[in-house]
Amino acid sequence: MVKSALQIARAAYQPKVPAALKGPVKAVDGEATQSVANQEEIKSLFPNTYGMPVITFEQSNETVEFPAMNVGVILSGGQAPGGHNVIAGLFDGIKAHNPASRLYGFILGPGGLVDHKYMELTADIIDEYRNTGGFDMIGSGRTKLEKKEQFDKGLEILKELGIKALVIIGGDDSNTNACVLAEYYKAIGAGVQVIGCPKTIDGDLKNEQIETSFGFDTACKVYSEVIGNIQRDCNSAQKYWHFIKLMGRSASHIALECALQTQPNICIVSEEVEAKDMSLDDIVTYIANIVAKRAAEGHNFGTVLIPEGLIEFVPAMKRLIAELNDFLAKNDAEFKMIKKSEQRAYIISKLSKENSDLYASLPEGVARQLSLDRDPHGNVQVSLIETEKLLSEMVGKKLAVWKEEGKYNGKFAPQHHFFGYEGRCAAPSNYDADYCYSLGYTASCLIAAGKTGYMSSVRNTTAPADQWIAGGIPVTMMMNMERRHGEMKPVIQKALVKLDGAPFKEFAAHREEWAMNTCYVYPGPIQYFGPTEVCDQPTKTLQLEQKK
Amino acid sequence: MVKSALQIARAAYQPKVPAALKGPVKAVDGEATQSVANQEEIKSLFPNTYGMPVITFEQSNETVEFPAMNVGVILSGGQAPGGHNVIAGLFDGIKAHNPASRLYGFILGPGGLVDHKYMELTADIIDEYRNTGGFDMIGSGRTKLEKKEQFDKGLEILKELGIKALVIIGGDDSNTNACVLAEYYKAIGAGVQVIGCPKTIDGDLKNEQIETSFGFDTACKVYSEVIGNIQRDCNSAQKYWHFIKLMGRSASHIALECALQTQPNICIVSEEVEAKDMSLDDIVTYIANIVAKRAAEGHNFGTVLIPEGLIEFVPAMKRLIAELNDFLAKNDAEFKMIKKSEQRAYIISKLSKENSDLYASLPEGVARQLSLDRDPHGNVQVSLIETEKLLSEMVGKKLAVWKEEGKYNGKFAPQHHFFGYEGRCAAPSNYDADYCYSLGYTASCLIAAGKTGYMSSVRNTTAPADQWIAGGIPVTMMMNMERRHGEMKPVIQKALVKLDGAPFKEFAAHREEWAMNTCYVYPGPIQYFGPTEVCDQPTKTLQLEQKK
Repeated sequence: MVKSALQIARAAYQPKVPAALKGPVKAVDGEATQSVANQEEIKSLFPNTYGMPVITFEQSNETVEFPAMNVGVILSGGQAPGGHNVIAGLFDGIKAHNPASRLYGFILGPGGLVDHKYMELTADIIDEYRNTGGFDMIGSGRTKLEKKEQFDKGLEILKELGIKALVIIGGDDSNTNACVLAEYYKAIGAGVQVIGCPKTIDGDLKNEQIETSFGFDTACKVYSEVIGNIQRDCNSAQKYWHFIKLMGRSASHIALECALQTQPNICIVSEEVEAKDMSLDDIVTYIANIVAKRAAEGHNFGTVLIPEGLIEFVPAMKRLIAELNDFLAKNDAEFKMIKKSEQRAYIISKLSKENSDLYASLPEGVARQLSLDRDPHGNVQVSLIETEKLLSEMVGKKLAVWKEEGKYNGKFAPQHHFFGYEGRCAAPSNYDADYCYSLGYTASCLIAAGKTGYMSSVRNTTAPADQWIAGGIPVTMMMNMERRHGEMKPVIQKALVKLDGAPFKEFAAHREEWAMNTCYVYPGPIQYFGPTEVCDQPTKTLQLEQKK
Repeated sequence: MVKSALQIARAAYQPKVPAALKGPVKAVDGEATQSVANQEEIKSLFPNTYGMPVITFEQSNETVEFPAMNVGVILSGGQAPGGHNVIAGLFDGIKAHNPASRLYGFILGPGGLVDHKYMELTADIIDEYRNTGGFDMIGSGRTKLEKKEQFDKGLEILKELGIKALVIIGGDDSNTNACVLAEYYKAIGAGVQVIGCPKTIDGDLKNEQIETSFGFDTACKVYSEVIGNIQRDCNSAQKYWHFIKLMGRSASHIALECALQTQPNICIVSEEVEAKDMSLDDIVTYIANIVAKRAAEGHNFGTVLIPEGLIEFVPAMKRLIAELNDFLAKNDAEFKMIKKSEQRAYIISKLSKENSDLYASLPEGVARQLSLDRDPHGNVQVSLIETEKLLSEMVGKKLAVWKEEGKYNGKFAPQHHFFGYEGRCAAPSNYDADYCYSLGYTASCLIAAGKTGYMSSVRNTTAPADQWIAGGIPVTMMMNMERRHGEMKPVIQKALVKLDGAPFKEFAAHREEWAMNTCYVYPGPIQYFGPTEVCDQPTKTLQLEQKK
């Protein structure tokens, strides 16, 4: 295998860990916990794993002998930088407890457990992947572990391999399912513990107990690097407006963090759009106003950050999409008979007034996507909409009207970018490398302490790693009941951008200045070897959230 | 101005320079030179600047006193990482010759000279921009300096500011024009020297004397970083084919260099397509074959690198575009009367058989772009064609046919990317920071030596910087006569990818292995502070070209 010079040099990096994890640890129990809401329902659904205490690991003077433990590990869902380091930390952790311990990786996600596809992860393999990005060591997948048959099928192979604990690395859904699995295995006395690890680059798995999900730091830094490069180009050429869409379907943490790192002229935050009940036209007018004001100062250039999930946060668009889904489902046969060139007029004639007007205002390409590109259930595929082009096209039209009215006299030339895959598998930053390794190592301590239904937790991460606090949080503690696919289910609350939180407030306090003046910051590429202020800083989001 | 931690740390970097530039230098003349071709014509066009010797700067024991020199500098054309370092090297160079020397920057490109827009570049300003990307210190522009009136208008401000030499930082065209300007100023005894510097991230300004143009190294490393990240994702998810288009209209150096750095499954090289007279269908079949072969092994994923200029290298497409341009120009009025939905059929009915068939085979969106998106001269705007989507759509169609014929039984889900602006303004790599600073410093030595019509040259750059060779190359030496816009003109030969050159041969020797086996390399982000093998390597292209 050919490796780059950086791959080779980076393999030798020793992740920094909390002081407590450097020797024997003892588990210190906190008080009994409650779920964040719906306590009674959650308790009844998780009789065996509800109410457990928060656990903190502290240094111990006593060396305890642990029996060898066989452990399984699963990567679930989308890639996030640092997954391999979780596994490396877990490996080193179980070996430190007892060198005869073994680690098994289930292949291509939760499906590997059900289908009995696995490999033993030996020291050779682990060493190949230390501090690398991607999930390619064992692969990942999106199979959801939800059904009793899956749990029982999985248990067969766990028994066969003598596995006493399973670590599931995933987002909010995967950790919810991990807890359901923990509860089930405990209820039937299967003798298999289940521990979760908080992963998602979207940053929407966080709460009082989990400061951040891993991968968010690295991904935001990669996106900010290229946004910074684009901004430098923008400011050098002074002739384009760059519309940059950023990953993040269900929350705008990435766009907000990148805005804090790079100070663009405009950043749209979906949560604000929803809270203010902004229409698509409101957003377009907001952008066009800034374009026009900058043009009046002779600045016909700028940058706009757009979260991927924006469309689904615009209340009026949500209503349009709902009616469209409903209408097209009911009138599928008739719709298919309509000539392509007449479909748009047909839909406009059939929708309710509000939705019809909105549909008519959309550019042709987007209107076509909304009516044609439906998924197997007949639903509009919102994710296919190129929001960055939609917005720039509508802004261009509005500016053209203003020009005719004499209200605007500039040039508007847009460029488009979308960053998602560019950052999901980057080699983890020092922060993520340290954080992930510590999460994995902590998971091994939770296993050794006999815990199940816990999420591995490392806190106080804006301080030097020495002072980080390792422990475990009962997953039920983060749960509430939510409607999913028409059914009430216990789930981990998704963390959206809080409009009264410090990161958004920081952004809101500066955005007018950033809009008019060109205040671009150029973060540059992630550095692994330089001075600590360059290499070891956590995200602005986390720094602001943790600021006392 | 808010600066990122990296911006602050990087400002302190001291570029490495050739040993000869560390103290007093002497200019050593080589033999008289000839242009690469058309010697008689070039000589008659450049009577005052033809045939001059190649110059090498060597260490001197003698300290010479130089009078203060006022110097002007211009950034011409597209941004490339390192432009600011050329200016910093030039500044330090003229100050080293005499601290009373002054440097003036002309604003927003060559237009600044003609319009008398300039600023004095003082130490404060220079220090703000050391080792930064972008051209925002003085801006750049695309005005071409070609006409006597421009030269005369420029001379007014040069005289007014007492400028004795002008440094023009640009690509092949800008350097050609710099030489025309040098010749003119010498012919009229204007007393202004003109020196060029080789810039272009496309890498197509290089020859026997100029090893590489600056910016190519950094830009390719940024693109390779994100390509590597995408490949790691590709190999982790194992479900997408990523079609990645890379900057480079007139040559495929960037795509080839990125392929050598990242080892993708497929890389198309425009120069090969042209040499082998490949049709669009040949390219599509080539890609589809690899997709199908990988699918047969169970690998429904992969990566394809595509140079931006590909379409214009496909001989059949060139013929189609030529006929379309011609036909639409002649039948503009009639064409505009045709209903949108019938335009395609109309064009198909009117073109010659070969071109009509090709046009009919194109996906609808591309066909529409070809007929509708014409520039002010009525020409098809080839640059607007989304080649990455065109290819993936055609590959998808071919695979669908093969599936029906039972020849293919895989899944084909494409993703698309285009990288251009992401790399043009990155902070220069150590290589580009050193190379650019040395080029700028060398320019100051050429000025001090009284030279004009020279390009600043730094060679032997695969060796440690100490051993680099600084000097000057007469621009006329790189010229030949070429037809441009219907007229024969003296121009610097553009360097295309040589199919018998070492970089392409290295790629060709490995591409079959890379296609079938997954051999991805992950270069990671540019490092500025780490071990030298990580931070200081020149491009693979240069290393292979210089290998003895």
